[in-house]
Amino acid sequence: MPPKAVELRSQQLALLSRLNHKMSTDPEIGKLLKQITTNQEFDRLSQTEKRNVHLIKRNYEKQTALPEKLVSETAKQQAITVNTWKKAKKTRNFCLLKPDLTKLLNLTRQEAEILMKVKATATPYDALLDEYEPKMTETKITPIFAKLQQGLVALLEKIQNTHNQPDTNLLNQNVSVEAQRKIATSLAEKLGYDITSPNAAGRIDETEHPFSTGYYDDVRITTHYYTNNFASSIFSVLHETGHALYDQNLNQEWKYQPIGASCSMGIHESQSRFTENIIGRSREFWTSFLPKLKQPAPELQSLKLEPFIQAINKVEPSKIRVEADEVTYNLHIVIRFQIEREFFADNVQIDELPQLWNEKYQKHLGLKIENDAEGVMQDTHWPSGLFGYFPTYTLGNIYSGQLLNKMTEKMPDWRSSLAEGNLKNVQKWLVQNIHSQSNLYDPEELIRKATGQEPNAKCYLDYLNEKYSKLYGF
Amino acid sequence: MPPKAVELRSQQLALLSRLNHKMSTDPEIGKLLKQITTNQEFDRLSQTEKRNVHLIKRNYEKQTALPEKLVSETAKQQAITVNTWKKAKKTRNFCLLKPDLTKLLNLTRQEAEILMKVKATATPYDALLDEYEPKMTETKITPIFAKLQQGLVALLEKIQNTHNQPDTNLLNQNVSVEAQRKIATSLAEKLGYDITSPNAAGRIDETEHPFSTGYYDDVRITTHYYTNNFASSIFSVLHETGHALYDQNLNQEWKYQPIGASCSMGIHESQSRFTENIIGRSREFWTSFLPKLKQPAPELQSLKLEPFIQAINKVEPSKIRVEADEVTYNLHIVIRFQIEREFFADNVQIDELPQLWNEKYQKHLGLKIENDAEGVMQDTHWPSGLFGYFPTYTLGNIYSGQLLNKMTEKMPDWRSSLAEGNLKNVQKWLVQNIHSQSNLYDPEELIRKATGQEPNAKCYLDYLNEKYSKLYGF
Repeated sequence: MPPKAVELRSQQLALLSRLNHKMSTDPEIGKLLKQITTNQEFDRLSQTEKRNVHLIKRNYEKQTALPEKLVSETAKQQAITVNTWKKAKKTRNFCLLKPDLTKLLNLTRQEAEILMKVKATATPYDALLDEYEPKMTETKITPIFAKLQQGLVALLEKIQNTHNQPDTNLLNQNVSVEAQRKIATSLAEKLGYDITSPNAAGRIDETEHPFSTGYYDDVRITTHYYTNNFASSIFSVLHETGHALYDQNLNQEWKYQPIGASCSMGIHESQSRFTENIIGRSREFWTSFLPKLKQPAPELQSLKLEPFIQAINKVEPSKIRVEADEVTYNLHIVIRFQIEREFFADNVQIDELPQLWNEKYQKHLGLKIENDAEGVMQDTHWPSGLFGYFPTYTLGNIYSGQLLNKMTEKMPDWRSSLAEGNLKNVQKWLVQNIHSQSNLYDPEELIRKATGQEPNAKCYLDYLNEKYSKLYGF
Repeated sequence: MPPKAVELRSQQLALLSRLNHKMSTDPEIGKLLKQITTNQEFDRLSQTEKRNVHLIKRNYEKQTALPEKLVSETAKQQAITVNTWKKAKKTRNFCLLKPDLTKLLNLTRQEAEILMKVKATATPYDALLDEYEPKMTETKITPIFAKLQQGLVALLEKIQNTHNQPDTNLLNQNVSVEAQRKIATSLAEKLGYDITSPNAAGRIDETEHPFSTGYYDDVRITTHYYTNNFASSIFSVLHETGHALYDQNLNQEWKYQPIGASCSMGIHESQSRFTENIIGRSREFWTSFLPKLKQPAPELQSLKLEPFIQAINKVEPSKIRVEADEVTYNLHIVIRFQIEREFFADNVQIDELPQLWNEKYQKHLGLKIENDAEGVMQDTHWPSGLFGYFPTYTLGNIYSGQLLNKMTEKMPDWRSSLAEGNLKNVQKWLVQNIHSQSNLYDPEELIRKATGQEPNAKCYLDYLNEKYSKLYGF
């Protein structure tokens, strides 16, 4: 967007959220809901019909509780705060961000307190969490994250104590954008994300920050090509393709119904991280794919499997979340979760955020944060009004571990198939157990159905421990 | 869009047009309109308030006359027909397009007949014309276009009889995309379309077909870079920048009001063609800009002013409208106007369109059309449901000639200023007389106010005759 357009954009977003609010609070919906839920008819509805009624009711009750003015003001303030954040991050000046962030946080607090009553959650923060991960709460997350953190710190210590540290210089080789585009295309196609056939339902475009968008027969992803860091686009394409496959494989019989949507941000992230890491950073995948990687890139002819696998799995504490490896990534999220929880419990003030952030990075990752651009202002989430969103990233990782565990039980030879270049059975299992289930269950229930377990960190920690003990040799 | 997404897109467009229709036909609008127009209050309204009421009423009456089902079916059929057209054009097979085009034309006929009653136009085609160029009619256009055609044919004959034909080989020189991007940026900036400052209100991106979109502080344009045809992006950027400047300079005091919109497609085109041709293909502009063109492009160091001016103004009948020069361009439009007029008067059937097209190209441009892809199927307009739109292109050219005439009267030395690189006074004059007038008048009235004349072809023909007699030396 052109920089000057922010005022216009914020007005447009405010209008759209006002219209959305008006439509979703139409009293006719309330009347119909009352009829169908008090009527004996309800018992005769099918499971999917009941779920649809539940989802419509949940949204209606939430929307009617929120005043239109609050909704549109929040939308407007989000657009403004993101814009201020861009400038503040560039000049490393948290003071510049503070006034807008304060306004946004005050609006979000108001929203959280209203939602807490509607949803009958224990805390305002739970009400926000529930927006992204229905039924998930601080009380459930806290022990899971604590156990995860403990396991990660122990693993990290082992890794850091190993003398065998991988060399990542081979990832800094110059690779032309043209070659990287071809690699991205062949990766997407390998994963079953069709972007080239005359009947393709996907596209890859270029943006500063990669994302995926759309559903069913129109799901598009973006990436960014850095000539001196070809792995960046590889893993962003793998990640976004994981999201894209989920959205393409939602149950089309339920199209445009509430149950036809994806389940939650955490479940979505489980799919992207499964594809990016469990598949995409595995020795088996590259055993089969490395020759295809080299085909369009003469620069990479001398690349060897073992050093490449080592390099793309190097573990090292770093300051920036989106650049973090599989092991330290969730420590970044745990820090954010702890800060959000304390903030919405009124135990922390905005002024204290930068300091608290820096202390936690020192304590949990052993890193000294030099300025707020690489600290509390690194992510767009808070200036965008996304509070309670960060935990879904780690929940996604945890779910991916549980899915891996169950899938391995059902298909013990999936890794050898993968090494032969066969991904079909893995994709089929994910479509059957996650994608096609769409929004039929809340995330916890979906994970229970797919894996037979409550959400827990054990499987994910087992996966990491096994993988990294082999890679680092301990 | 991914090819498979067409069904989804057509459903989305149908929904959006249904929602738009529902909102614009809200009985509350009718009630308020009745109150304000029967009330004595109306006389006390200011001119701008009266115009707003008129525009709201015009839209309300039109929308309420059109059944919701027709509106959403038309939107859906447009999306489907465009998609079929892409395939039909690729395979040069008009028979493939015929069934969908027939459905779309039947829907458009229904619409035109309803609109004819609401608008009290003489013919259904007039009702369609009025959608893009309010108050313009077949009866007004026919003699203007006839005179224009006569003048163009005479001029073309003189040009073709000259022995001094320009050499266009210098335009086929390879220029890197990177250099062309820099040229596009410096062109845009030269014209006052800011895309680089920290407060820029514009952007240039890349798409297959160039376009401009947005208004006020968020107007973006696209272009396409061909390494073996650098002039293509130059003139598409000049053209789209003409559109962009109009939308950026609409009167911001009337933002979001009907009078705050642009006036008509013809007026819009007058601005893009003024910038692309009257400014952008003039000797004066390149006298000042040629050194800047060369700066980022080492490939163009040997380019000389005179042969370049000759090459970018070469006149030659060609089959494809969008590639036509200034002189023959409007002959393409006159053909389309004649066919549309006959078609909506029921004098021509769909089956006859390809044949009729080819005959007219033979007669008016002396060209033998080899297949329907370069013939009747070359443009996206008809498959997109845009009937009555083509004439606005030629009206735009005619208006640009009238504006040029008046501007020269007011600022006789504008060409020498331009040769010195000064475009400010020209832009200021256009902002004052066209852009800032926004939608305060219907196009004919706006042209009358700006130029003191009714729409007519004389000024444009004078401009072409003077320019090309100098260039070709007759």
